[in-house]
Amino acid sequence: MHSLSQALQRAALVKPDGIATWFNGRETTWNQTLEAVQRKAAVLQARGIRPNDRVALLGGNSDEFYQSLLAIIWAGGIAMPLNMRFAVPEIAYCLTDSGSRILLVDEEFLDMVPGISGSAPALESVISLGKGRPESGVDSFAQLASQSEPAAAAERGGDDIATLYYTGGTTGRSKGVILSHHDFVVNSLQWALAIGVSSTERNLVIAPMFHLVGGLNSLAAAIFTYTLVIVRKFDPGELVKTMQQQGVTKASLVPVMLDMIVDWLQTHSTPLPALRCIDYGGAPMSEKGLRKALAALPGTGFYQVYGQTEGGPNICVLDARYHVLEGPLAGRLRSAGQPINGVTVAILDEQGHELPQGQTGEICVRGLTVSRGYWNLPEETAAAHKFGWLHTGDAGYFDQDGFLYIVDRIKDMIITGGLNVYSAEVENAINRHPAVLQCAVIGIPSERWGEQIHAIIRLAEGATVTEDELANLCRAELAGYKLPRSYEFREEPFPVTPLGKVLKRELRKPYWSRS
Amino acid sequence: MHSLSQALQRAALVKPDGIATWFNGRETTWNQTLEAVQRKAAVLQARGIRPNDRVALLGGNSDEFYQSLLAIIWAGGIAMPLNMRFAVPEIAYCLTDSGSRILLVDEEFLDMVPGISGSAPALESVISLGKGRPESGVDSFAQLASQSEPAAAAERGGDDIATLYYTGGTTGRSKGVILSHHDFVVNSLQWALAIGVSSTERNLVIAPMFHLVGGLNSLAAAIFTYTLVIVRKFDPGELVKTMQQQGVTKASLVPVMLDMIVDWLQTHSTPLPALRCIDYGGAPMSEKGLRKALAALPGTGFYQVYGQTEGGPNICVLDARYHVLEGPLAGRLRSAGQPINGVTVAILDEQGHELPQGQTGEICVRGLTVSRGYWNLPEETAAAHKFGWLHTGDAGYFDQDGFLYIVDRIKDMIITGGLNVYSAEVENAINRHPAVLQCAVIGIPSERWGEQIHAIIRLAEGATVTEDELANLCRAELAGYKLPRSYEFREEPFPVTPLGKVLKRELRKPYWSRS
Repeated sequence: MHSLSQALQRAALVKPDGIATWFNGRETTWNQTLEAVQRKAAVLQARGIRPNDRVALLGGNSDEFYQSLLAIIWAGGIAMPLNMRFAVPEIAYCLTDSGSRILLVDEEFLDMVPGISGSAPALESVISLGKGRPESGVDSFAQLASQSEPAAAAERGGDDIATLYYTGGTTGRSKGVILSHHDFVVNSLQWALAIGVSSTERNLVIAPMFHLVGGLNSLAAAIFTYTLVIVRKFDPGELVKTMQQQGVTKASLVPVMLDMIVDWLQTHSTPLPALRCIDYGGAPMSEKGLRKALAALPGTGFYQVYGQTEGGPNICVLDARYHVLEGPLAGRLRSAGQPINGVTVAILDEQGHELPQGQTGEICVRGLTVSRGYWNLPEETAAAHKFGWLHTGDAGYFDQDGFLYIVDRIKDMIITGGLNVYSAEVENAINRHPAVLQCAVIGIPSERWGEQIHAIIRLAEGATVTEDELANLCRAELAGYKLPRSYEFREEPFPVTPLGKVLKRELRKPYWSRS
Repeated sequence: MHSLSQALQRAALVKPDGIATWFNGRETTWNQTLEAVQRKAAVLQARGIRPNDRVALLGGNSDEFYQSLLAIIWAGGIAMPLNMRFAVPEIAYCLTDSGSRILLVDEEFLDMVPGISGSAPALESVISLGKGRPESGVDSFAQLASQSEPAAAAERGGDDIATLYYTGGTTGRSKGVILSHHDFVVNSLQWALAIGVSSTERNLVIAPMFHLVGGLNSLAAAIFTYTLVIVRKFDPGELVKTMQQQGVTKASLVPVMLDMIVDWLQTHSTPLPALRCIDYGGAPMSEKGLRKALAALPGTGFYQVYGQTEGGPNICVLDARYHVLEGPLAGRLRSAGQPINGVTVAILDEQGHELPQGQTGEICVRGLTVSRGYWNLPEETAAAHKFGWLHTGDAGYFDQDGFLYIVDRIKDMIITGGLNVYSAEVENAINRHPAVLQCAVIGIPSERWGEQIHAIIRLAEGATVTEDELANLCRAELAGYKLPRSYEFREEPFPVTPLGKVLKRELRKPYWSRS
């Protein structure tokens, strides 16, 4: 058996004076982090946390957030980081669904607490990650911790649950994805092998820690004893400056952040010689954006990571050596790479039969760290795991060299006249036009075809294009039944999730509610 | 769930035409290896192998041995590689203890088969890895396989048992150590991270595949898709030539082999520019030998691996950066390194209490891949796992920087006049004398002290030393009660296990049988 707490103990054993976290200029060693975690865990135990109890955590990136995450686990609890962008009813839903007894919350969210408490009857205690509000019965975590004796680690690990991540947004209501101590430790090993993480890394955490991209980067620090350079607020210029000053060697970014950093670098010459590696994922990245990034950061190795919370999370990686525009390894930029060690990926049809290379079906996964399921949702869990495979909800295919291509979300498939059209294929064609900044293709109601293909387009500033031009572009690349029947031009940005995934549900809504 | 069979399938997916094995000039791709494994597995299933059935494997290193190992697992069986140096009764004991139904055996061992069969009643079938002996009912595995259709992989993996390794030798009777699919895959990840194994490796396998050092190196090839350069017979000159010609990048060696290679290199100038990494372990290596190795292979990184079959196997690694004779990182050569990721090491006293850094006790382990125990031996399993920790049987301590030092086997501790003396400590003192080639310190019967310390010494050719010189050397380093009371000089090599561990049991025997 192994546990995240043992990983932290090991970090303090093998690198006691190594820097665990840098946040706003404050450096904390592994020994200090261990002690802070032990004291914070004692606070939680004094508030009655028992093994397997859920403790919610609501806040932005900080060293306090990191220590709190580890303290919940050290105390024997299940850490439940909440999406900071959730509204009060969504937070209350997650707290109630999980039966959380304690909420640890950033000072800046304290005003939401009365609303949350009112709708989450299981909640017994709220503790502030910053200053307390004694008049409302909210104490400061740091202050309580300073008055506590360090607690011993709870005897948990292996398959015991470490975290519940409520997956937000693109489809339906939030579900709590169960991940165990084992899942975290082993997936960290897989991830580190795939992208070459070492103990000397200075690893930027700007991706939200409440999401698994930032979460795995953070928890893996205790496993690999690297330094976390924690940044709370995304501002491309400020961020690049911090990366330079802190000698950041590795950054996990979501595409929207990478895009903005690259845009900033194009107008501000700022060398980042230490930046060895960027791994990006969490949402699709356009080939156009990737080409720009490669040009802006020629000394940096890029790794595309394909995963999902339910996958534990990492599934495939497109290695840095394929992030090239010329030579024998070029031409893979649109691929999601190859399954990482310890993961099996199969393309299944609707009856659970494996499809041969070249054919498109649902991307399904077996692996060392696939989540055992959703909290309190046996039916949804069974549906996601039918035929003994985790169903990702993504459609894709393998080419003859074993590279995976993601075509689309299964749910984003349009059925028009009985034929399946993956909207991403149409979007890719339209996106090639230089005037197009953003494009989303959806199915809208059609009396004749059931659904008809509709393209929503946002143009680059000052650019113009006609419907005919776009239609010609599509005709050159796509079969007739895949051509959009209608075009729509918008000026406002598309609605997106915090990671930059377009919320097609929102785009579809006006068309379908009309019908 | 993940399995070794899925790893092999992945290898054939992502690197179909990559070379899996080189053996005696014969190259086999991953696609060909997969097909050979599928056909061999069909043979085993036709002979009635069902999930969890044990299949024994007796032979030297070869690509056939490798495919057979994988075929047993593919067919759903438990692979049981047997120590090639076992005598007929020992082999029969392992077959009977495990209830093996099939024995796969090298052609050169076929003469032992009648003797083995007579004492192993569960054995139903013997198959030759080379030519068959139809007159004795022994078929050729390759021939049977060529007449079979490829079998689908058995639905096994995760915690299902993949192998039984019978630990031979240094103490008591053989015990079958259980390792699961999960143990192999995850320990491979841990090992690869600790020593930096990649998919481009050309990995020498000269350590016996029937032992876990060679076994993990081989099974990990399917996981990482590197090439195995398989060598059957150890001859330092021939081996170095093969390493040079095959561009070997990594070699896992036991100390006795490393010593002999280094000796050979000292008289034959043979550059090995591709040799990036040597990991060595399986038995202690003297500091003297290590210094010679560093001088002989200045471009190679050395990694010391401390493990044991029960540990899954790897526990600690002394990184290449500590294999230096000068500078701030020097002075660690006598350490076994630091716990690898996913492993917790504690030093426990006899009551199961954790001892602080600096104090010597039993080295105990918790980790992702610790064996669940011994086949059919619940009492021995419980004894090895008391207080929830795997007890390695080794005595050691952590220094203040979290480096582990192995003092001795617990069983090699001498109790003299009520005081504990670790023989390794005395041996280290004596070994410093340049005339000393080999030294073993044991306890022999003493009416006054219970046990008294006795040193057995083998001198380098042509060298001389007096007892007084050695006694002075010891006095300069050791407390009075640790000094040998008697010395004995021998010319013949000490009895050793196949991995070069001195069999102290054999050395002690004449003294204790006399008393």
